[in-house]
Amino acid sequence: MCEASAYIIGAQDPVLVMESVDKAEPDGENIRLISIFGEQKIIRGKIHSLSLVDHKIYIEEQP
Amino acid sequence: MCEASAYIIGAQDPVLVMESVDKAEPDGENIRLISIFGEQKIIRGKIHSLSLVDHKIYIEEQP
Repeated sequence: MCEASAYIIGAQDPVLVMESVDKAEPDGENIRLISIFGEQKIIRGKIHSLSLVDHKIYIEEQP
Repeated sequence: MCEASAYIIGAQDPVLVMESVDKAEPDGENIRLISIFGEQKIIRGKIHSLSLVDHKIYIEEQP
């Protein structure tokens, strides 16, 4: 399985917000994350970068 | 390995723009895609959605 972990990055070290992310859908100022278990989270931010081989999604938090 | 394929979506069916994508980095109106082989492509567009279990990145082309 190729799910990833989503992290918020900012001034500090990356903060894990969701593991086992399957889908990510930017929507205006938010991103909807959906895990392989169907769990959903809406994060106010935008995708900063993906590093898929490392299984990581980095999200830049919006003010 | 958990690389993905990147597709541009628009009015028509998704068009494959790069396979084996490791990194994706939105940058203003562009997205830089980097494959596991080090190949790079800059696409004018933004991330529409990710479907990681399906190994797919969907990019919405910008006009």
